[in-house]
Amino acid sequence: MNTYDQIIQLALERGFYFPSSELYADASAGFWEYGPNGVKIKNKFLDLWRRELVRRDNMLEIDGSQIMSKSVFSASGHLSNFTDPVVKCKKCFSSFRADKLIQEVAKIEVPERLANELVDNLIKEHNIVCPLCKGNLSNAERFNMMFRVEIGPNHDEAYLRPETCQSIFVDFSRIYKVSRGKLPLGIAQVGKSFRNEISPRQGLLRLREFYQAEIEIFCNPSKLDELTKFEEVKDTILRIYDGHTIEISVQEALDKKILPNKLVGYYLALLVEFFEKTGIDRKRTRLRRLSDDEKAFYSTIAFDFEVDTSIGWLELVACNYRSDYDLKSHSITSKTNLEVMDGDIKVLPHVFELSLGVDRCIYSIIEHSYYIDRESDDRSVLKLKPYLAPIHAGVLPLLRKPEFKEKSMKLLNLIQKDFDVFYDEAGSIGRRYRRLEEIGTPFAFTIDHQTLEDDTVTVRYRDSMSQERISIDNVSSFLFTNVYTFERLPSSKAQYLPK
Amino acid sequence: MNTYDQIIQLALERGFYFPSSELYADASAGFWEYGPNGVKIKNKFLDLWRRELVRRDNMLEIDGSQIMSKSVFSASGHLSNFTDPVVKCKKCFSSFRADKLIQEVAKIEVPERLANELVDNLIKEHNIVCPLCKGNLSNAERFNMMFRVEIGPNHDEAYLRPETCQSIFVDFSRIYKVSRGKLPLGIAQVGKSFRNEISPRQGLLRLREFYQAEIEIFCNPSKLDELTKFEEVKDTILRIYDGHTIEISVQEALDKKILPNKLVGYYLALLVEFFEKTGIDRKRTRLRRLSDDEKAFYSTIAFDFEVDTSIGWLELVACNYRSDYDLKSHSITSKTNLEVMDGDIKVLPHVFELSLGVDRCIYSIIEHSYYIDRESDDRSVLKLKPYLAPIHAGVLPLLRKPEFKEKSMKLLNLIQKDFDVFYDEAGSIGRRYRRLEEIGTPFAFTIDHQTLEDDTVTVRYRDSMSQERISIDNVSSFLFTNVYTFERLPSSKAQYLPK
Ligand SMILES: [Zn+2]
Ligand SMILES: [Zn+2]
Repeated sequence: MNTYDQIIQLALERGFYFPSSELYADASAGFWEYGPNGVKIKNKFLDLWRRELVRRDNMLEIDGSQIMSKSVFSASGHLSNFTDPVVKCKKCFSSFRADKLIQEVAKIEVPERLANELVDNLIKEHNIVCPLCKGNLSNAERFNMMFRVEIGPNHDEAYLRPETCQSIFVDFSRIYKVSRGKLPLGIAQVGKSFRNEISPRQGLLRLREFYQAEIEIFCNPSKLDELTKFEEVKDTILRIYDGHTIEISVQEALDKKILPNKLVGYYLALLVEFFEKTGIDRKRTRLRRLSDDEKAFYSTIAFDFEVDTSIGWLELVACNYRSDYDLKSHSITSKTNLEVMDGDIKVLPHVFELSLGVDRCIYSIIEHSYYIDRESDDRSVLKLKPYLAPIHAGVLPLLRKPEFKEKSMKLLNLIQKDFDVFYDEAGSIGRRYRRLEEIGTPFAFTIDHQTLEDDTVTVRYRDSMSQERISIDNVSSFLFTNVYTFERLPSSKAQYLPK
Repeated sequence: MNTYDQIIQLALERGFYFPSSELYADASAGFWEYGPNGVKIKNKFLDLWRRELVRRDNMLEIDGSQIMSKSVFSASGHLSNFTDPVVKCKKCFSSFRADKLIQEVAKIEVPERLANELVDNLIKEHNIVCPLCKGNLSNAERFNMMFRVEIGPNHDEAYLRPETCQSIFVDFSRIYKVSRGKLPLGIAQVGKSFRNEISPRQGLLRLREFYQAEIEIFCNPSKLDELTKFEEVKDTILRIYDGHTIEISVQEALDKKILPNKLVGYYLALLVEFFEKTGIDRKRTRLRRLSDDEKAFYSTIAFDFEVDTSIGWLELVACNYRSDYDLKSHSITSKTNLEVMDGDIKVLPHVFELSLGVDRCIYSIIEHSYYIDRESDDRSVLKLKPYLAPIHAGVLPLLRKPEFKEKSMKLLNLIQKDFDVFYDEAGSIGRRYRRLEEIGTPFAFTIDHQTLEDDTVTVRYRDSMSQERISIDNVSSFLFTNVYTFERLPSSKAQYLPK
């Protein structure tokens, strides 16, 4: 079994994630649920994101409606531009996303969002027919990827947002005012977005309903190099890919014009420092500079933060300099002046965005944490950071006897509100350790004969499998100290670079 | 201005919440956004809910898709039953929710989900016409309150879920199996639900898109009185309303048959203990026993946890004994056996649910925390629990000078990743205190002349306005100790009852 399939199997069997509405045959592809372990890792990942990006940089976070009015998407361009070409089989009436179909059948590179005439030409040129029944295909039509909903008895037209950032743009002027904001100002949001993909991929990688954690940094375009906090990160090392990967400090990348300005450099550094704390192997990440024809229509500078996985490089974060595209569009469509005061000067802010796909991050963290320990019974382990582990600690009575259970309950009562703990009395102690390791539990406390005498328990470490004894009364402070270990990793600092 | 309007004004001016898509004239009613202060209080409220209910009781939490397949809602009954009667004006074509219109115009009590013929009769009987143009009204039609969406190029029918619990029911058998569950087992979920209300109320009280935090407790119906953990809560005092309000311990309510069984008693007690930690005044809460004709169609025992607000009693949590209605329906519709093993016996679990409306809770917490301090300059204060306060602490340099700012930054660096802090150097120190108090900030640290000498700051308490000095190095541990004060409140225990 390949790694991707192993992760999917682990996800299904241990309640990380699984398909939605799975009891029913009419369940559509592209909808997945987080199970109990998945919810916990997702929420802890988002807590880390809040800690290392939102709070670190004093950003503001909002939480907007997912259903937004039609005008929002007229302004954003999604109503006219957010489309894929579709062709239908004239015989069996199946539909296909044309660019993907051509790519697969003709084995050629096809750009995204290809115009209809070009699709039709390529289909003719390569004699492409229905892959299911060999029927002829219709001409291409545009398929808008937004989900439409109708509101109230008059069926007012509205849409599920295809990206969370539209809430941020529409809310910007109120937020800036009531928060007495100053540029640059980061506004963040975690929430669901929706894209009616024609052929969603399985698992968490291309969903029709998915979590984004987006940050929009509003800035004065004439002050992109005036950022005193840049000093904090100037030595942080970035891995930048532009045909090949180089490791370079932010300052040096700026000096060599690989990065356009301090503001972009600062936020890319924060992003990279954040990801180092997720447990994703930094040597398997890169900031890929996008070429002009890869960029989204609103973007003038673009980097993708990518991670190497068993199924190839995966985009986790799109970092786009969107200029004033969004505020200008909403300003024109809503006939509202969205300029704000920056000191004494009125300015329509530009936007640099860090648009993160949460579900893919969760997949990548799990995959990078997963290993088979060949030296110890081929045990399967998730080497998760303690603060991201779904379960922080197991509580295991050595024997299934009342006096062991009683001590276990005493320990549980001391820690279970503050930490995610799992009580397990079923099976051999070895099997119980295995089940905990498999979902990344960093610590296991065992109640044994000595516990009955002196109220100490053993603590076993997931990675080293070593054990030591501690008093039940010290377990809570042990966990506070050993779970919340957010130290900055040395690898992010220039002085640790290989000479 | 009445209290409700004062809260709305505070919400708008200080970024708690505000209408969605507000730049645009086609924004629909019933969609609101959480601003920076609202997001923080909401997330902290949910953290408390996880702590005091989910983790305390070892429940499992999932996070399911909001879009679910048509079959789910065939089974749940929402496709056929989740409708309101609508009448249209024949002259101006406006639509109205018929039962509400009759209630307002004829000043009579009208039951929810009234059948069409009864609506038509009442409209004739009371000569009700269009309130906008006096035009005649059409006969009543059913309006389904679910939002329909179409998936993929073949337009497969699906719906935005009208309640989060359907995900839990559909996922139950997988969760039970992979988690090696035992009855009773609580499965929880926080997420968005959607109801296409005909006339949504303003603010957070009746939304078309809203947050639920639901808990479904799966149990063996023959063991509802076998619950050893019941002992933990038997002395907890409930305020039960059934015509009038009584204060009674869970045990006594059980003895007097006011509560049907230990399981229901246990979870109502947990709910009440949780709410005591939200800062909502327990004397203004009650568990209202619903009469048979008030209950939802799936419910055999029902209590509403209600709170007294300036606009009347508000339902915050619906507590329903749903029996096996849901699992049986999904079992039949999906042709899947959803029975599980409870010990050696196969059982189709019953469900007791605690269905909490998050947005209304946030409103109620803010309203119950709000007061004008007549003894101190009529300052406006939110008396929030420190662990629910959007901002934990202010950091205020007494003077706008570099050496004060430098010390402030030193302090910020020590605490800003762990706590929500706000740096403010604008205006007089008194005005800065006021701005912090108004959003419920419990502590303010001031950097003054003495700070420059000995690295101590003053800490000012929001409620008493008293001050003391502490060392900058101790601020972090001061906050850990004084923010996370989750002690059980004495009022929940029988021994504190008035004799
Ligand atoms: Zn075909
Ligand atoms: Zn009319």
